[in-house]
Amino acid sequence: MDVISVIRTKRDRGRLTDEQIDWVIDAYTRGEVADEQMSALAMAILLNGMDRAEIARWTAAMIASGERMEFSSLPRPTADKHSTGGVGDKITLPLAPLVAACGAAVPQLSGRGLGHTGGTLDKLESIPGWRALLSNDEMMGVLRDVGAVICAAGDGLAPADKKLYALRDVTGTVEAIPLIASSIMSKKIAEGTGSLVLDVKVGSGAFMKTVADARELATTMVGLGTDHGVRTVALLTDMSTPLGLTAGNALEVRESVEVLAGGGPADVVELTLALAREMLDAAGLPDADPAKALRDGTAMDHWRRMISAQGGDPDAPLPVARERHVVTAPATGVLTGLDAYAVGVAAWRLGAGRSRKEDPVQAGAGVELHAKPGDQVTAGRPLLTLHTDTPERFDYALQALDGAVTVAPAGTPFTPRPIVLERIG
Amino acid sequence: MDVISVIRTKRDRGRLTDEQIDWVIDAYTRGEVADEQMSALAMAILLNGMDRAEIARWTAAMIASGERMEFSSLPRPTADKHSTGGVGDKITLPLAPLVAACGAAVPQLSGRGLGHTGGTLDKLESIPGWRALLSNDEMMGVLRDVGAVICAAGDGLAPADKKLYALRDVTGTVEAIPLIASSIMSKKIAEGTGSLVLDVKVGSGAFMKTVADARELATTMVGLGTDHGVRTVALLTDMSTPLGLTAGNALEVRESVEVLAGGGPADVVELTLALAREMLDAAGLPDADPAKALRDGTAMDHWRRMISAQGGDPDAPLPVARERHVVTAPATGVLTGLDAYAVGVAAWRLGAGRSRKEDPVQAGAGVELHAKPGDQVTAGRPLLTLHTDTPERFDYALQALDGAVTVAPAGTPFTPRPIVLERIG
Repeated sequence: MDVISVIRTKRDRGRLTDEQIDWVIDAYTRGEVADEQMSALAMAILLNGMDRAEIARWTAAMIASGERMEFSSLPRPTADKHSTGGVGDKITLPLAPLVAACGAAVPQLSGRGLGHTGGTLDKLESIPGWRALLSNDEMMGVLRDVGAVICAAGDGLAPADKKLYALRDVTGTVEAIPLIASSIMSKKIAEGTGSLVLDVKVGSGAFMKTVADARELATTMVGLGTDHGVRTVALLTDMSTPLGLTAGNALEVRESVEVLAGGGPADVVELTLALAREMLDAAGLPDADPAKALRDGTAMDHWRRMISAQGGDPDAPLPVARERHVVTAPATGVLTGLDAYAVGVAAWRLGAGRSRKEDPVQAGAGVELHAKPGDQVTAGRPLLTLHTDTPERFDYALQALDGAVTVAPAGTPFTPRPIVLERIG
Repeated sequence: MDVISVIRTKRDRGRLTDEQIDWVIDAYTRGEVADEQMSALAMAILLNGMDRAEIARWTAAMIASGERMEFSSLPRPTADKHSTGGVGDKITLPLAPLVAACGAAVPQLSGRGLGHTGGTLDKLESIPGWRALLSNDEMMGVLRDVGAVICAAGDGLAPADKKLYALRDVTGTVEAIPLIASSIMSKKIAEGTGSLVLDVKVGSGAFMKTVADARELATTMVGLGTDHGVRTVALLTDMSTPLGLTAGNALEVRESVEVLAGGGPADVVELTLALAREMLDAAGLPDADPAKALRDGTAMDHWRRMISAQGGDPDAPLPVARERHVVTAPATGVLTGLDAYAVGVAAWRLGAGRSRKEDPVQAGAGVELHAKPGDQVTAGRPLLTLHTDTPERFDYALQALDGAVTVAPAGTPFTPRPIVLERIG
């Protein structure tokens, strides 16, 4: 087997055989296939595609490159959720304790943000004392005691994916549906969950800009999960505008706690409940009542125990940025657009995100929204508040927001897009 | 400027701007753009193409990455030749002294073989004492005194091409016409010749398997040369069967000397003369008579002076391989096919070529042909002789020759393909 023949096969629009896929993933993980060879193959896959059987084998080979976790010793069914990433997407924070409160075990292995989308671990690390890095024993302990754990994935899961993901990030080969689907699903299947709900974002703030692309990605991932014995469902959800009223780390923790307290923005509550119901259904708990668990405080109780179990103080004040800048509404009327991508880039530039993996993030930085599409706004009144510790970044963040806001004359009929666009599974 | 936006432009079937091309070639030469990024871009170029203006700018940027040579101080017009590479292609050896004998200056900067096609420098190094590495002053001295020099290209010419060529070789991105054309022409234009004749090979032993592909490559290269003020012509020539009766290093030197002595195989003589006439025409010497220079010994005289000037002894016996193996004709009749690629791979495996740049070659190894397509052959009589110092390689070489020979019943009408298929320029 030699790598050039594998690259040529895909370059010339052929099918990769099982043997070619197994060999190339293994040889790449071991360093025998070089980065420059894998990036040429990734570009050929991006441009010439892979069929369902190739994607399935590619995913299986990435799973086989590392260890697999095993939760069958737990007394509860496991349920996991994955979001393809968006702006203001803090849903994991209220969702994991909520689903645990309803009887499932939620082993939520999460990542850090890169680019304009935030990372769940970055958000939780704004809570004083909270630790993302747990040993396998610690993780199982929290899962057993609380029912939910959110922590960093170990290096042992799908190392081929870890290496390939970092390569794709610097070679313009991220946006390939076969590679995105196999990357997500190899990690999730290696994590050993029994059921999985995928939140596939669609819109300017998401990787998938169109419903057609999102549907293809979702269908591919649901197929991969099902083929590997994981009950998998996908929701296509809107990412044309940020979720909720905050994008940033501590800002989003605060909003998540509001949801757990029975309040919070309507769209965050709606999506949290929709995903909770799918996870509980997939976990074999269709009679659970997540709305009740939000109302009666049991979800909040699980949140507090989960944070405490990982060294965090749920009662400690959250960090606040040193400087603020208010952006006012440009006109009076109906807010018809507040672009997710622009808000995500602005939050990133304010310090909430990072450009390189090794960069630190600011806990308090981000964007706070004072209106959502469909709301009335008044010229000169606050529309957004920008937060940062480094005020020299305001101008750069404001550039990202140029053209992001659209206001129609008062009385213009306008119906915001629904949060859940489609269900696949 | 960032490399991911350049990769994405080509990946998404866009045109690269002049600024993008200049920047990416320069940044790659300096090491700021990494190999894995350039290989993704090369694959995107291979699959999505470049238009004529992009190829021209890409070529200009590679020329600008290094130094340019300058021959205007010579009293004679300069003429250069480049072959895209084939099996048994020793034409440079008789051609350079022949064209010098007719009044042009021939600065022939050549390379070594890689894969199944041989390299001119490897062939000449089988002459005892001959040196491929000359300083610029030595090279100009030989050119001035003899009129022809064949030597290794310095590291200073088109370093971007040198780096990119090595990368393409290991990433399955060799076979892209824009990249082949710009690679060849950047080196040839940087070498500073006033006129250039391209021998574009077509057939199983060549990179270009079809006349249509060869024509596209030739037209692209003629356009690039013309745009840079180099009088450029291309001949499309047959490479379905080896040129002449030898493929190997010393074996091909011996055959070249036969041609210079006024003998040699008809196809080698015909192609040498056709290319000599084109070079002399392009150099502004249309009345020169290369056939006469072969007959009257002046070409041989220039050969001997050229070899001596580079330390070689033109009278020394050439190396001979230690072992021989004879392959007999499988049937009696008309030889209708003797596949160039198969013979090239056999010669390579016998030790005439190398798999990696740093491998040595055997001077005596190779394949000798006792018949050419169109000749009568007799079952059981010698058809090929294999030469090597390492007889354990015979089996591996014979595997390459499996199916390479076709014989039709005696009397079957058969006309061999002409050597020169088409002229472009």
